[in-house]
Amino acid sequence: MMEAVAEARRSRSGRRGARSGPVAPPYITRKIPPYEILSEEALALIEEHADRILEEVGFEIRGDQEAVDLFKAAGAETDGWRIRPPRGLIRSIIQRTCPASFMQHARNPERSVVIGGANTVFSPAYGSPFVTDADRGRRYGTLEDFGNFVKLAYMTPWLHHSGGTVCEPVDVPVNKRHFDMVLAHMTLSDKGFMGSVTTAPRASDSIEMCRVLFGADFVDANCVILGNVNTNSPLVLDGEASRVIRTYARANQAAVCVPFILGGAMGPVTTAGALAQCFAEAMMCVALTQLERPGAPAILGNFLSSMSLKSGAPTFGTPEPALGYLGIGALARRLGVPLRCGGNLCASKIPDAQAAYESANSMWPAFLAGAHFILHSAGWAEGALAMSYEKFVMDADQLGAFHTLARGMPVDENAFALDGFHEVGPGKHFLGSAHTMRNYETAFYDFPLSDNNSFEQWSEEGSHDIVKRANRKWKAMLEAYEAPPMEQDKREALTDFVARKKAEVPDAWY
Amino acid sequence: MMEAVAEARRSRSGRRGARSGPVAPPYITRKIPPYEILSEEALALIEEHADRILEEVGFEIRGDQEAVDLFKAAGAETDGWRIRPPRGLIRSIIQRTCPASFMQHARNPERSVVIGGANTVFSPAYGSPFVTDADRGRRYGTLEDFGNFVKLAYMTPWLHHSGGTVCEPVDVPVNKRHFDMVLAHMTLSDKGFMGSVTTAPRASDSIEMCRVLFGADFVDANCVILGNVNTNSPLVLDGEASRVIRTYARANQAAVCVPFILGGAMGPVTTAGALAQCFAEAMMCVALTQLERPGAPAILGNFLSSMSLKSGAPTFGTPEPALGYLGIGALARRLGVPLRCGGNLCASKIPDAQAAYESANSMWPAFLAGAHFILHSAGWAEGALAMSYEKFVMDADQLGAFHTLARGMPVDENAFALDGFHEVGPGKHFLGSAHTMRNYETAFYDFPLSDNNSFEQWSEEGSHDIVKRANRKWKAMLEAYEAPPMEQDKREALTDFVARKKAEVPDAWY
Repeated sequence: MMEAVAEARRSRSGRRGARSGPVAPPYITRKIPPYEILSEEALALIEEHADRILEEVGFEIRGDQEAVDLFKAAGAETDGWRIRPPRGLIRSIIQRTCPASFMQHARNPERSVVIGGANTVFSPAYGSPFVTDADRGRRYGTLEDFGNFVKLAYMTPWLHHSGGTVCEPVDVPVNKRHFDMVLAHMTLSDKGFMGSVTTAPRASDSIEMCRVLFGADFVDANCVILGNVNTNSPLVLDGEASRVIRTYARANQAAVCVPFILGGAMGPVTTAGALAQCFAEAMMCVALTQLERPGAPAILGNFLSSMSLKSGAPTFGTPEPALGYLGIGALARRLGVPLRCGGNLCASKIPDAQAAYESANSMWPAFLAGAHFILHSAGWAEGALAMSYEKFVMDADQLGAFHTLARGMPVDENAFALDGFHEVGPGKHFLGSAHTMRNYETAFYDFPLSDNNSFEQWSEEGSHDIVKRANRKWKAMLEAYEAPPMEQDKREALTDFVARKKAEVPDAWY
Repeated sequence: MMEAVAEARRSRSGRRGARSGPVAPPYITRKIPPYEILSEEALALIEEHADRILEEVGFEIRGDQEAVDLFKAAGAETDGWRIRPPRGLIRSIIQRTCPASFMQHARNPERSVVIGGANTVFSPAYGSPFVTDADRGRRYGTLEDFGNFVKLAYMTPWLHHSGGTVCEPVDVPVNKRHFDMVLAHMTLSDKGFMGSVTTAPRASDSIEMCRVLFGADFVDANCVILGNVNTNSPLVLDGEASRVIRTYARANQAAVCVPFILGGAMGPVTTAGALAQCFAEAMMCVALTQLERPGAPAILGNFLSSMSLKSGAPTFGTPEPALGYLGIGALARRLGVPLRCGGNLCASKIPDAQAAYESANSMWPAFLAGAHFILHSAGWAEGALAMSYEKFVMDADQLGAFHTLARGMPVDENAFALDGFHEVGPGKHFLGSAHTMRNYETAFYDFPLSDNNSFEQWSEEGSHDIVKRANRKWKAMLEAYEAPPMEQDKREALTDFVARKKAEVPDAWY
């Protein structure tokens, strides 16, 4: 029976391999409910305190008078950069026009994702200056590394998205990097992606490239790119960041609004306070998108981290951010805005057991919170300072399991297997039973990188840990990579656009 | 501020260290709800199918006529060893007398645990013939290893229980091993423990030793020992196992009734069917305890594992058992019997990232299921074939985090930190704020074995992975171990009892 099963599965994966890319669901639609840990009363209290923080202390948008004026016109008190909205104002701005759910279109329509509702989208890790692998160790990321991670994300069936700054290509001038990054996402993959957020003009360039790829009218009417913007917590949004948010919103593209709160530094050490602050800051940014362009898509983000009180270093996979995730999940549902959480986060420099425990402890609550867009789902190491090739494929395995978990437990006649119990009876085994033969093709998610063999077999094969297998896997994937098809004129229009824009200004490294 | 925090924490842990053992809560009382993934209708369907499996197919207790007769007298149809209870009978037997919650007394009353209700008790891994560590690799376990794991569990603040067969002491004759194991639990630790289940006489010996330690009257009135008994799935209970269950119940001690179902072999590959079977088998064993002695404590157990359809090997940390855990959690609550799940399970031979991912993927659903007794919480490796010294202390770190998670999110005035926001204001930091100074002592669980240092510092210290730190830790713990105090006459009575019983029969290796 085992042979028959293995054969059937081989031929099934063979069929998959023969197609022009990974065959997998474009995103997860959860059939299990989110995990609620807070009562209605507790959630109302958090909302009330978010409102009080804004009304009593206020929020500053430093250096963007237009943004401040938008809030003033909407009814907030302002004083210099400080904005003090009366209670309920921000919520009502958001709820009036912000979509609860939207589609981010990919150039391959089969890979378009719906962000919101019961859906979850996994996106790779974002923003690390370094990359690391088992052969060469840690080093600055390059455009080649960037392309490699775009390729790996494209080939990974369980990643629904190409991500954004999958690593910093530090070999490219800072002021031109975004062209190469967006171009790589557009040409090496056909999944959705994120654009530049370092300055408003670079955000505009990213969107302009989308107009070349998708057509200007399509872009004006549909979301095709995300921009992930951090606040300067506590309670400050830098003017450049606010202009980036407004740039995306003005183009009808989705800003991901992410308070970055390291508890004890940029926020209180107590979770409820950090959560109320996070919610307040994220709501201000989402409201800004709606003031800029009512109806623009937006995502409520959060980055809640604990810290080591021994050293002040950020810590990951700890229980306080887990509680925060579960809390913000409920708050986002009550607000009616899609939620972003972080996924497989860890502090470890290498893909060891520390990395895995911490990552799982971060992904589980993100998933259970009902997060709609889970950034940092694969590759994250060293507190976002490094992108790990081995961890990328290890994390990807884990994402596969969440697809099965999300399907929940069918309770139909076949699932109950009463015919199987009648056939097999007490003390016999189910291996060759009709019920097993009928169901083995869809039974049991297997972690492809896990070694489940006997100790003897594992020893004979070299007693390798999972890092060794992961190292082989990402290399084999890059070896087997084939670019998704793209019309030649589209490709030329994009490369021409990039060449022209790059030639307009000299290189700059800031 | 960091220095002040570090100093305060050092002196706090210093105070802890000066006491005669680990200071920690004796068990977890969860302030967060269990995670419910199934509707009332789905749960009722699973119960109905469990009943139908028993009524239509039946359950065999092979070789224990007394047990079969107990069910016959209670109203079940019987035919040889086969028992076919009418629908609802088993549930009503259980609900009539089985306690929903009970205390297992430890010889140190501060370490007694309540099993049931909103409580969770963490117990070490159980049953491996091998032990493994980073220095010596994998080898057969010995009584010295056994004692070491009892010591480590005693010293670990987050383990509430001493466990049972923490490893097989294969250097001791099989027919006398149980005396040494129970003696080690009784003398090297003062936490609750489990006794022998390999034969009914050995179970009796284990209980008899408890009578020596606690007094016969106390034992007759209180639970002081658990016995963990597996069924022979599908739908069979071996007569020796049923006599062991009855031995514990007769003495008013708690049998942990554990269907061992490797889906596809001892049960169907579909989760709902395996779950209904598991529930049916466990209910039969719990009912047997109540037929033997109404009111005896019992625990509803389960071991639901998936398998690799490539090789037939069991797999761990996969999503199907996670769904099973969440399902059995709800079923146990509806039945009103305490639940046992497995904790940090994995297939990996070594404490690498595979081990950690799989373990976390197993512990999270066990915890969220509201399991009351989580066996295999620390040390488990290689699918229960090996107990790992390094993984033991790594897993223990993880258990600490679940204590914080279980406390949920306080939403009181202090937690909301409004005074802190007023003090700090936009753009400043919370490090030295009055709110932070007031709260840092209780803020943030830190994984003691995690390295959160900078890459440079970590590199200077040797670029170690967590296994290296874990290796140092368990050795330091064993070095620092001090036995909990015990009255000399108790100790002598126990050692005399063991010496006398061992002398009564020759050594046997089966």
